[in-house]
Amino acid sequence: MSAPEAERLARVALSRLGEPGETRMTGLVAELGPVRLRDLLLAECDLQGLQTDVATRLAALDPALELDRAERMGLRFVVPGDAEWPTTLDDLAGAGTLHERGGVPIGLWVKGPFRLDGLAESLAVVGSRAATAYGDEVASEIAAAAAEAGLLVVSGGAFGIDRAAHRGAVSTGAPTVSVVACGADRVYPVAHEAMFAHIGRTGAIVSEAPPGCAPHKIRFLARNRLIAALTRGTVVVEAARRSGALNTANWAGRLNRHVMGVPGPVTSAASEGVHEQLRSGAMSLVTRGADVLEVVSPAGAHLVEPPRDVVTDRDRLTLRQRQVLDAVPAVSAAGSDSIARTAGLGLREVRGALGALEVAGFVTGDLDGWRLTELARA
Amino acid sequence: MSAPEAERLARVALSRLGEPGETRMTGLVAELGPVRLRDLLLAECDLQGLQTDVATRLAALDPALELDRAERMGLRFVVPGDAEWPTTLDDLAGAGTLHERGGVPIGLWVKGPFRLDGLAESLAVVGSRAATAYGDEVASEIAAAAAEAGLLVVSGGAFGIDRAAHRGAVSTGAPTVSVVACGADRVYPVAHEAMFAHIGRTGAIVSEAPPGCAPHKIRFLARNRLIAALTRGTVVVEAARRSGALNTANWAGRLNRHVMGVPGPVTSAASEGVHEQLRSGAMSLVTRGADVLEVVSPAGAHLVEPPRDVVTDRDRLTLRQRQVLDAVPAVSAAGSDSIARTAGLGLREVRGALGALEVAGFVTGDLDGWRLTELARA
Repeated sequence: MSAPEAERLARVALSRLGEPGETRMTGLVAELGPVRLRDLLLAECDLQGLQTDVATRLAALDPALELDRAERMGLRFVVPGDAEWPTTLDDLAGAGTLHERGGVPIGLWVKGPFRLDGLAESLAVVGSRAATAYGDEVASEIAAAAAEAGLLVVSGGAFGIDRAAHRGAVSTGAPTVSVVACGADRVYPVAHEAMFAHIGRTGAIVSEAPPGCAPHKIRFLARNRLIAALTRGTVVVEAARRSGALNTANWAGRLNRHVMGVPGPVTSAASEGVHEQLRSGAMSLVTRGADVLEVVSPAGAHLVEPPRDVVTDRDRLTLRQRQVLDAVPAVSAAGSDSIARTAGLGLREVRGALGALEVAGFVTGDLDGWRLTELARA
Repeated sequence: MSAPEAERLARVALSRLGEPGETRMTGLVAELGPVRLRDLLLAECDLQGLQTDVATRLAALDPALELDRAERMGLRFVVPGDAEWPTTLDDLAGAGTLHERGGVPIGLWVKGPFRLDGLAESLAVVGSRAATAYGDEVASEIAAAAAEAGLLVVSGGAFGIDRAAHRGAVSTGAPTVSVVACGADRVYPVAHEAMFAHIGRTGAIVSEAPPGCAPHKIRFLARNRLIAALTRGTVVVEAARRSGALNTANWAGRLNRHVMGVPGPVTSAASEGVHEQLRSGAMSLVTRGADVLEVVSPAGAHLVEPPRDVVTDRDRLTLRQRQVLDAVPAVSAAGSDSIARTAGLGLREVRGALGALEVAGFVTGDLDGWRLTELARA
């Protein structure tokens, strides 16, 4: 299944014309369809101010050539109607706008072998670029656990938590998807060149911005809504109070995805934004991969097994026996009458308990009275 | 106002006879009253197994002499009916049992000038004995903030979080109350001798166990219910999975007190117990003194003021202006047509935005085009 070619070409042109996620544009595409919108714009109709010199720019574009060039760079343009189109993105139609960004993307430029319709079982792991060693460690652990459980890990390819998340997934041999703010052909940040090369070979690099586009700030905000929409849930590992990761979490909440946060030291500014959201109830608290799987997986698939309590010999004693044991002096011997006084219990029940404790190996009795064994002292 | 002397003496004897919080005893006192119960026990009636050799022990006790001795050690015995009796303890009558401990205490042995009816506005801060430096720091900070806001800080005098909590309160010059598992005349742990001496001089050391009693394990569990019952809320700062602090939190929940937990690194075993309770919803998350005050204080008295966002010059720009600003190259100059293409906006609105940005000091224009100012680069 694949979208009609005329529609794809119209979407290519519109993708090049506007900013990623600009609501005027995504709204008009939703209302009129890409072909009709392009034709109207070419005719310079006045559509909510978009007409300015748009017609000229639109006429100068050659979408077929764009697609051709993209293909030669290893990029494809996935649009609604394609079998590969991740239909979860359609939820964006009803999710409102943030920072004048919103709506279903006109199309996605994709580099890499991973097919986007494989994102049904996926998890976003995002957080601060200025992550601490603690945050890096936890993000990697959670991403690795998710990847091992078969969830596709999605992040934004940035410094800090994003990088740790991608690495955690890669460490398990799984593909990972990076949704970026610049063109999918570009590398930003440059220091992540090797990582992007790996992701492009094994997973996918995805962008709403056409090839060649630079990573402008506003594009990160538009990008965040895609990370939230493409996944079943978003885990924020570290986020300071105004972190962009909270913008992703906000989108995830609007889209009725699971929103999770990992706590950290309350003395760490890098966790402040997460703690605020946990306090307000906007996020649920997770501490490890197993917690996350319990939240995002279909009911019952990944129930957390509570860490088993270590049952000690002492735990097998009755409460009365423990009470008597606690009344036996630590260093010397004592008679059962003295132990009964200390325990505040009657002599008969204390004698019974001491007998049971001797059998269990916690006390020994001789002519001087009762004393603790090595086992009781342990 | 003070309880009748006959009742006080009967309570002294019963306090010496049974273990702190033993439910058979607290239940019978609630049912029969202390005087009648003592008389029945002296007559060796068979009351749910308590009769064993209790009559003999009871006859051998001299409650008046006990009170006299206690007074010479600076201890008083506070019982229901005394003006000083903290009536919040009466909530324990309906709060069930844990580890066969529960019920309203028969009386409280108290050392120190602080009157227990002053505990109406109070906060328990408890946690692991094996606290980390992080836990100590946070417990101290929260206790100091609570004390400064006029809440009486209650803890258990143990190593770790308890000690940090008492110290935090003391650092503000406020009294603090330590509820202990041994007799209020004893010092446990011995290393806290100076701290207990200070608390005994300025606050109060409280115990359900009569003078001289040793700190047996089971007594800590009985003690925990008092810490929970005496306070408006309990904050757990660090607690491993089987920590006694969770027992205190459990009691606080049963008593409809506020139960709060401070998160920590998810990699720290010392915070595991807290994270579990936060996840289950049994505790609410707090990160600092202000959060705690917001939870425990009467409505509106200590509303948290959200840390104010720093508003930068950039924040005052319109979104459109910011979008245009982001499209001005970082190092060279560019014409407005090139900026419009990068921004994906019409030339007319880009020119308008550039004019506004120049007025705001973010760009300068000359014959080469527009470039960023120092302000825009900051």
